[in-house]
Amino acid sequence: MKNALLTAGTLHVSKWKSFAQLLHYQPIEYKEPSSYSTLAESLRELDKKHGTGENRVFYLAIPPSLYKSTAQMLGKAGLSVENENSWARIVVEKPFGRDLDTAIDLDQSLHEHFQEHQIFRIDHYLAKETVQNILMFRFANSMFEPIWNRRYIDHVSITAAETLGVEHRAGYYEQAGVLRDMFQNHMMQLLALTAMDSPSLFDADRVRDEKVRVYRAIRPFPTNDLQDYLILGQYSAGTINGKRVPAYRDEPGVSPDSLTPTFAGMKVLLDNWRWQGVPFYLTSGKRLAKKRTEIVIQFKDVPHSMFRRTLGEHITANRLILGIYPDEKISLTFQTKNPGARVCLRSVTMDFHYHQNYTGPILDAYEKVLLDCMLGDHMLFWRQDGVELCWAFLAPILKECETCADRAEILLPYDSGTWGPKAVRDLKK
Amino acid sequence: MKNALLTAGTLHVSKWKSFAQLLHYQPIEYKEPSSYSTLAESLRELDKKHGTGENRVFYLAIPPSLYKSTAQMLGKAGLSVENENSWARIVVEKPFGRDLDTAIDLDQSLHEHFQEHQIFRIDHYLAKETVQNILMFRFANSMFEPIWNRRYIDHVSITAAETLGVEHRAGYYEQAGVLRDMFQNHMMQLLALTAMDSPSLFDADRVRDEKVRVYRAIRPFPTNDLQDYLILGQYSAGTINGKRVPAYRDEPGVSPDSLTPTFAGMKVLLDNWRWQGVPFYLTSGKRLAKKRTEIVIQFKDVPHSMFRRTLGEHITANRLILGIYPDEKISLTFQTKNPGARVCLRSVTMDFHYHQNYTGPILDAYEKVLLDCMLGDHMLFWRQDGVELCWAFLAPILKECETCADRAEILLPYDSGTWGPKAVRDLKK
Repeated sequence: MKNALLTAGTLHVSKWKSFAQLLHYQPIEYKEPSSYSTLAESLRELDKKHGTGENRVFYLAIPPSLYKSTAQMLGKAGLSVENENSWARIVVEKPFGRDLDTAIDLDQSLHEHFQEHQIFRIDHYLAKETVQNILMFRFANSMFEPIWNRRYIDHVSITAAETLGVEHRAGYYEQAGVLRDMFQNHMMQLLALTAMDSPSLFDADRVRDEKVRVYRAIRPFPTNDLQDYLILGQYSAGTINGKRVPAYRDEPGVSPDSLTPTFAGMKVLLDNWRWQGVPFYLTSGKRLAKKRTEIVIQFKDVPHSMFRRTLGEHITANRLILGIYPDEKISLTFQTKNPGARVCLRSVTMDFHYHQNYTGPILDAYEKVLLDCMLGDHMLFWRQDGVELCWAFLAPILKECETCADRAEILLPYDSGTWGPKAVRDLKK
Repeated sequence: MKNALLTAGTLHVSKWKSFAQLLHYQPIEYKEPSSYSTLAESLRELDKKHGTGENRVFYLAIPPSLYKSTAQMLGKAGLSVENENSWARIVVEKPFGRDLDTAIDLDQSLHEHFQEHQIFRIDHYLAKETVQNILMFRFANSMFEPIWNRRYIDHVSITAAETLGVEHRAGYYEQAGVLRDMFQNHMMQLLALTAMDSPSLFDADRVRDEKVRVYRAIRPFPTNDLQDYLILGQYSAGTINGKRVPAYRDEPGVSPDSLTPTFAGMKVLLDNWRWQGVPFYLTSGKRLAKKRTEIVIQFKDVPHSMFRRTLGEHITANRLILGIYPDEKISLTFQTKNPGARVCLRSVTMDFHYHQNYTGPILDAYEKVLLDCMLGDHMLFWRQDGVELCWAFLAPILKECETCADRAEILLPYDSGTWGPKAVRDLKK
């Protein structure tokens, strides 16, 4: 995925050839200052040759442990300097630290030579078309916002399920686990987009202000009662798509007594006027039954059923699904009369597929974020206050899960190819 | 259509044969009492022979001018009498009089021998599946009712457009015109179903109570300022589906200087809490561009566009269409992000086709109302108070249109195959 910048995308072969001639490769010794001076020199030459106006994007597609030192070395080589008409930008990607302290520390290091407007913290989930569409769906239509609150919504489920295991990333994943890998970033972004109030303007800072207001409203989990709010799991062996897959602990590079969670189900409550009492169920895990990313808005039952004598008490409640994967779609489930002489209802679903009748080019999420970085648009990037607020929420939970005496019992095994530990259902009670 | 009772429907041929043996034909002299005694005698014999429990439906598929006398003759022959375990019902169809006075007079005549629970006033529009579905759509889903009011709805358009001309019904139509033919009944029913509050129970009288509340809330038209609320038209010659069709005045049986309207567009306002200030545009006419019956709920613009800098001020507002003909469907038009790198919106439509995934039998509207009559369910029939309230609204308008000095000027000609007089657009200003 990190090579997205270099993909030909929809370029014609002829365009690709002339573009490819502008690509240069220069290796760097991370810790060697002269390596950065050489880079600076080369860039100056390329600037002159191609008239690039000294604009630079430093995309750190490197191990996160090297972000700090590399940013500092770039700065010391004078590469963070912007002139009146030029810009220099640095792009980093999760993990932004592994807890609040290290996140603040990383940020301070980046700020030694780069200012906030030069720093781009990628969350490629934000660049997925259907994720970007959430705000438009909510705020370019007048009919959803009036019912987007505690009066009409029973609960919200945000799911990012993978069928893949840890694959070749055990070294990183053993240290991270699902909470750092998925919740501190992607899941929190989906939560914010679903729950935020309307910004006054569709502008990077106004949108990020509203996201931060959501994070400030998250009710901290009571660490002594964690099981009512959080279920952690780790995959055992199982079958996915007819193929046997090994347990997490048997994966290459994973410790045979690893306590790293590969699944988490969470009940998040927001202490604000709009959402008081509406649970947001956030679920993500590896080796689950299906690859699926979606946001489900479950509406409340009708307050009164005029059909109770005819149809019985229960009427299936409305459900709106914002599908991100595999189907980029919006589905609305509602009740209609079943055709025929008798009065009975049936649940029907109305779908809109996001690319329906669209024939233009589709940008990959990474193409989109890197393009936005070049354009200087921070809309789809994390702002540091958001990063810190999400760590502030997760850090006490992580600490409890990783250091408490019964942490081996907290971690529930689940068969690969299922929907995670059965206990996750209890969260919804 | 009036022969629907006799159609074989979905009956198998074998069933049809045994059923057909139970059909009997007996001519009647409308004004001859002995004719009714003979009918009574025959029915008594058939009751004995077939054990029908003396249950009778008298479906008056006869000229409306004979409703009164025929009902009286049936009554005098003892045919309206119900015993403890038997029932006798009389079915009439529009027109229920031609103004308030004649409607009350007809009703009193029916009541001479029949009680209200024995009288079934058909409006076959009510038995159309998608019309029946309106109440279920509105009140079996929790997400539409909160936005079904003046805060969120800009206006409602109810259209019943025909391509047919007066056909072989000139004798009736010359006396009736579009207001009596379509508005006093079908259009008023669609209005009531769209605008009514939720009944406490899905029961004939509770539902009809709510409809009557809508009729009571209709703001009377100011007869001295009628053109701001009502446009009347009469079709001229024109082309429909590539075929030349004659003007109304050239149709067989129509007076060459007829002032009968074949088109009406109306702006109806409801003086109640839910709908204050929301216009309901009711349009119906013959020889229009397409045969189409639908209810369009046009939502208001978003109250504030966060996208104003990116996309300009205008965002297309949401629209919900309850389609009755030709497509029995529900369509929702809303805004989504246009796929691709740039931020722009596009209007998309999500459809649900009413018979989608349904394979059971479909009842014709007349089959449904006659079945309901046999079952004694008044849900889909007019109650007299509703009939009278609708006449009370329409009668002053009719009087003005039919007797004022400039009534020839009020009636605007329109070419067959168009959407009616252009002036109808001015209603929407």
